[in-house]
Amino acid sequence: MNSGKTVLVPVEALRTFVREVFVGVGTEPKNAQICADVLIASDLRGIESHGVSRLKMYYDWIKKGIISPAVRFEVVRDGPTTAVVDAHTSLGHPIAHRAMNLAIAKARQYGLGAVAVRNSSHYGIAGYYARMAAEEGMIGFSFTNARPSVAPTFGAEPMLGTNPIAFACPTDEDFPFLFDAATSITQRGKIEVLAREKKPTPQGWVVDRNGQLSTDTQEILRGIPKELFALLPIGGAGEEMGGHKGYGLATMVEILCAGLSSGAFLWALSGMEKDGTPRPHRLAHFFLALSVEHFVPLEEFRLTLGGLLRELRNAAKSPGEERIYTAGEKGHAREQRIRGEGVPVSPSLQAEIRSIRAELGLTGHGFPF
Amino acid sequence: MNSGKTVLVPVEALRTFVREVFVGVGTEPKNAQICADVLIASDLRGIESHGVSRLKMYYDWIKKGIISPAVRFEVVRDGPTTAVVDAHTSLGHPIAHRAMNLAIAKARQYGLGAVAVRNSSHYGIAGYYARMAAEEGMIGFSFTNARPSVAPTFGAEPMLGTNPIAFACPTDEDFPFLFDAATSITQRGKIEVLAREKKPTPQGWVVDRNGQLSTDTQEILRGIPKELFALLPIGGAGEEMGGHKGYGLATMVEILCAGLSSGAFLWALSGMEKDGTPRPHRLAHFFLALSVEHFVPLEEFRLTLGGLLRELRNAAKSPGEERIYTAGEKGHAREQRIRGEGVPVSPSLQAEIRSIRAELGLTGHGFPF
Repeated sequence: MNSGKTVLVPVEALRTFVREVFVGVGTEPKNAQICADVLIASDLRGIESHGVSRLKMYYDWIKKGIISPAVRFEVVRDGPTTAVVDAHTSLGHPIAHRAMNLAIAKARQYGLGAVAVRNSSHYGIAGYYARMAAEEGMIGFSFTNARPSVAPTFGAEPMLGTNPIAFACPTDEDFPFLFDAATSITQRGKIEVLAREKKPTPQGWVVDRNGQLSTDTQEILRGIPKELFALLPIGGAGEEMGGHKGYGLATMVEILCAGLSSGAFLWALSGMEKDGTPRPHRLAHFFLALSVEHFVPLEEFRLTLGGLLRELRNAAKSPGEERIYTAGEKGHAREQRIRGEGVPVSPSLQAEIRSIRAELGLTGHGFPF
Repeated sequence: MNSGKTVLVPVEALRTFVREVFVGVGTEPKNAQICADVLIASDLRGIESHGVSRLKMYYDWIKKGIISPAVRFEVVRDGPTTAVVDAHTSLGHPIAHRAMNLAIAKARQYGLGAVAVRNSSHYGIAGYYARMAAEEGMIGFSFTNARPSVAPTFGAEPMLGTNPIAFACPTDEDFPFLFDAATSITQRGKIEVLAREKKPTPQGWVVDRNGQLSTDTQEILRGIPKELFALLPIGGAGEEMGGHKGYGLATMVEILCAGLSSGAFLWALSGMEKDGTPRPHRLAHFFLALSVEHFVPLEEFRLTLGGLLRELRNAAKSPGEERIYTAGEKGHAREQRIRGEGVPVSPSLQAEIRSIRAELGLTGHGFPF
């Protein structure tokens, strides 16, 4: 059964399986499809940390009652260009999908649209929702807060989430400009990759409770759940290299999400009661759509973007560097490749899939494991 | 005449002088007042690089015809929540002030408002305009592109501007949350300060045309006008410490400003013809206002913010650190102090002021020089 090595699985077979798993735990088919699409989109972009490797996490959280599989999207406040949504601890992906569609509809009518969401759960890659706007000829922003893992400047404990900023817009090329980045230097998933490769963690990514930078990958991964380590914001420790800028951006994301939704923030997102009992994370998101056509003709915008991005790529390169990329290029190239080759599924992910498949009695996906 | 040392000048005397200088070169009194307010606000926050020390730069550019002192604010496109403005190379400060007020007016009616501006000039500190929204109970964003000085990731020449992101919002304290940061690690003004202090430039701020990091402050300052050095984006060189994130954010700012206004971008902002003749910079700005009341009651938002910011400040500190700050706190403290003490005016700035004063025949400001 276990091949013991990573295998490539056809994209559509994996997508169908993921959808059936969510249906199997009680999610409406149309919402299960959205969950599958977001997870698969992450694997296609090569962001394995947010793809199908997270399926077991969602599955377990749903079974423990931390995430509600049946989606409840309650608009508690509605205006011409704005809305506030209570997600009632539902699955974050369909909540975010619907919230961004609401922002897009408002932007189509008025030029701008924004939706703040509270009491939600992990919504996968932030960029998925920003890209939805780009596919409608708009600029899209997607933000979310997250459980505490990042230290503020001069701090030594995790307070802020990795709080990503995602931004997407159309260009004159066949893929959008797509920026999707945590406001921390890195995130736990990258440190897990280093652990598998038995490599040290780069100096400057992680700080311990004594304010010392740590590079011991195994110790960091053991200590993170005990809050003994914190990730550092973009710019690193202190202010000399701009760490206060990453910290400020992370706080800005927290304000947009929790402030505009009156949602939970910082330690209230830990997902644990004081005695360690798991509870819903109650994350907050913020989505913003700007209709390009309300500013300039879309074709003109596409040409501006194309000129801008190609001028950047054509800049003088540092010796030894072959290319300068613009945001979204690498992910697009990976997507082309993985659509053809299939999604790499590691032995540990194969084991998780077999276990879920057995528990839910799912068959017929033709996986080679 | 020259005391040879820095003197403290009363804030209002300096503000009056700056206003009279702009009036003296042809700016309408109400717009000259805005220019003075923005420059003085910068000095009050302790951002000397963008304060009255820039007066001579604007003065010279106006005299050379690079900036038009009489302000022309042409709304070329107008929608319920959006507008595009052509600034016709006018002074950036009154243009930006009016653009942000337009965004605020739209947000008051519809919840959101955004204004893109093209063909403008340097507008001073980005945070001034974001703060205008905070003072109206709104969230404000202010972005601008700038002449090329920052290298893209893997690049070795200046392409992007320092492209700041400014964000402000009300809190339950007597000053707003105010984030205002270049998307580069630092900006030229900070390197000029190091030069005066005869200190090396920190490793990682600046890259040369060979892709090597430079720390030679004097050589960097001599080489920047010849494009021999480029600043690095937040996160630094390469991708390991997140340099691609700073680069992506800088590009995002360029897109919001130039893309949504069909304005000039990257090398077109150099301010020079191919033969080196100075020409208008044609900068683009982008302003966004979000009316908090359209999402949640303003008092509730203020309380959320207060709780969030104080929780951050109360985090465990790195040993040796006395305080954790939130964005806007340090600037507010400086403002309180400088309002009482006066603005520090260096000997070189005294000389510039004396020269402009003599040229324009201005008298009666009571400066001690």
